Amino acid sequence: MSWRDNLIRIEPYVAGAQPDKTDFIKLNANENPYPPSPKAIAAIREFNAENLKKYPSANAVPLVKAIAKREGLQPENVFAGNGTDDVLSLAFRAVFNSKKPILFPDITYSFNTVWCDILRIPYETVPVDEGFNINPDDYARENGGIVIANPNAPTSIGEDLDFIRKILDKNRESVVIVDEAYVDFGGVTAIPLLKEYDNLLITRTFSKSRSFAGMRLGWAMGSAELIAAIYATKDSMNSYPVDSIAQAAGIAAVEDEEYFQATLKKVIATRERLIREMRTMGFKLPDSQTNFVFATHPEIPAHEIFGYLMEQDIYVRWFNKPRIDNYLRITVGTDEETNKLIDALRDFVYEKRWQAREHALNSGWVTED
Amino acid sequence: MSWRDNLIRIEPYVAGAQPDKTDFIKLNANENPYPPSPKAIAAIREFNAENLKKYPSANAVPLVKAIAKREGLQPENVFAGNGTDDVLSLAFRAVFNSKKPILFPDITYSFNTVWCDILRIPYETVPVDEGFNINPDDYARENGGIVIANPNAPTSIGEDLDFIRKILDKNRESVVIVDEAYVDFGGVTAIPLLKEYDNLLITRTFSKSRSFAGMRLGWAMGSAELIAAIYATKDSMNSYPVDSIAQAAGIAAVEDEEYFQATLKKVIATRERLIREMRTMGFKLPDSQTNFVFATHPEIPAHEIFGYLMEQDIYVRWFNKPRIDNYLRITVGTDEETNKLIDALRDFVYEKRWQAREHALNSGWVTED
Repeated sequence: MSWRDNLIRIEPYVAGAQPDKTDFIKLNANENPYPPSPKAIAAIREFNAENLKKYPSANAVPLVKAIAKREGLQPENVFAGNGTDDVLSLAFRAVFNSKKPILFPDITYSFNTVWCDILRIPYETVPVDEGFNINPDDYARENGGIVIANPNAPTSIGEDLDFIRKILDKNRESVVIVDEAYVDFGGVTAIPLLKEYDNLLITRTFSKSRSFAGMRLGWAMGSAELIAAIYATKDSMNSYPVDSIAQAAGIAAVEDEEYFQATLKKVIATRERLIREMRTMGFKLPDSQTNFVFATHPEIPAHEIFGYLMEQDIYVRWFNKPRIDNYLRITVGTDEETNKLIDALRDFVYEKRWQAREHALNSGWVTED
Repeated sequence: MSWRDNLIRIEPYVAGAQPDKTDFIKLNANENPYPPSPKAIAAIREFNAENLKKYPSANAVPLVKAIAKREGLQPENVFAGNGTDDVLSLAFRAVFNSKKPILFPDITYSFNTVWCDILRIPYETVPVDEGFNINPDDYARENGGIVIANPNAPTSIGEDLDFIRKILDKNRESVVIVDEAYVDFGGVTAIPLLKEYDNLLITRTFSKSRSFAGMRLGWAMGSAELIAAIYATKDSMNSYPVDSIAQAAGIAAVEDEEYFQATLKKVIATRERLIREMRTMGFKLPDSQTNFVFATHPEIPAHEIFGYLMEQDIYVRWFNKPRIDNYLRITVGTDEETNKLIDALRDFVYEKRWQAREHALNSGWVTED
């Protein structure tokens, strides 16, 4: 018997290659290629850091008010936390206390299974179809709650309001969490449904569309009753309020609508160009409502493309998981980064095709014209 | 059946009064009365906030190296996280996977029970004695792990190295976590024992002695094996690395030893004066190795003193809990704040004594000389 017997039994995680060099193109974490709002940067620079000696304002009231104002809600409908993961874990604890399993797609944000395991929440995953689409009818069955990422990750597919409404209509007795981490990049928000459905909870993050991956800041929106349950959970867990600097920066970011929209517009334009270019090379990929694309190539295994791009100092994401192991998730970078990505992809695809043609010729399967 | 049936069943927490006014003396959260190191403040002001668009460096390596250097350890012996609560929750998950109960004192940091409940870790609390002292012999029994806060909160009592060694010697088969949140204010650290005991894990926070209550920053120290288990847990939980600004500020704070020591010296001097003055008023309180005192008065109920101080715009902490509901936990503030506290306490104690004397005279129990 040793203390070692009581250590957690998990395989050490092998992180993706993180090169020491700094002159590489990082398209593997869905980070925003543009910096945060200059007003948010100024808020950090002007933050009175002497105040850090005190705990932050309880419940981040000024930040909550700024978010509520921006989204056309009341402060009682908003909860702010130290990142979406903080918000989601508190929400899971607050609202998923049924013996029936909660439901979510088999291909979605990996957070769900981790926190169900930790909180001992029973769950079942529901397969998406072959095109990675979620069928709302699949969620018309007994459950202890539902979690849908819309747009979904890593698929990049966004659904419309009718889709969310269908799920809600079939689940008046369950809390439905809609994770809208990527919605600002062209997705459709479920906010208009909040006044009809008091069992709807929407989560958001500052990490993507507001360029705050380096800070922990996220929020949830829902009926006053759901939000109160999350606050009660937070208080019962002795959980700390939002970091003071993040609060100040978050308020400035939320209030700078002009910069926000301009940044989104740039990312979306680059994304559309990337999708067009990749399709001309033979890639298959769904339309994206996010800041990334999810692509496969019928002729070339995804991990080969992944490896080639890494040699070119371009880092994208390849998941060695069932169903999606022939896909790449590629973040939309700046135009310059995207140009280099497109050039590298084209070089590799054409080289591969040339090799295949040579091989076929040498085998006598194809004759030159 | 309604979604409401699956909401968490807890009483909404009623927070202590948080006045809207700002000109009150806040001695109820063990915050440091002095600001963070000027070098840390400069690090925040000079932080390149454009970089917030990217996720922070994995595993906070530069911060871990700075902490390791300061504590005379190797980086492999240090884990940094988003606050002590983040570090402790990951550590509990990583090292307490036994069916036997973990042990901790009945009077200690309230985090323990919360996270044992969430993680379904069996536990038993061990009563401290009437003087709130922990008896190491009480921990010489089968267990799945041990958590000791040293110095302990809210008692303010610190124990020496022999005490920790006794617990470790009786528990070679369990992980022993020593939470040293307050150790810098005169406690004795268990760091020298790390090279002898590979089952010892020490946790620390930046919130108190380094004046960073407004940010989330904490760390753990232990054998490479224990630290690796925490990293593996963090990675398996998809848990985010430390906030980028907090990393930069943390490094600057850890490296500014001179300011750190000067601040501690001031807090300790004020604390000793406060203890002397309170004892002259009849308060009973143990010696403190923390930045707060834990006091009771044999003649006046604690909640009356608590209420009186609040009327004087001085906020201290009163726990309405078994065994400690006649005690006040009072944070050591600046000298000016402490002077006002002492004056208010003296006024109230003398007024109460006067009232008691009048009452006794009127009842004929006591005759005037």
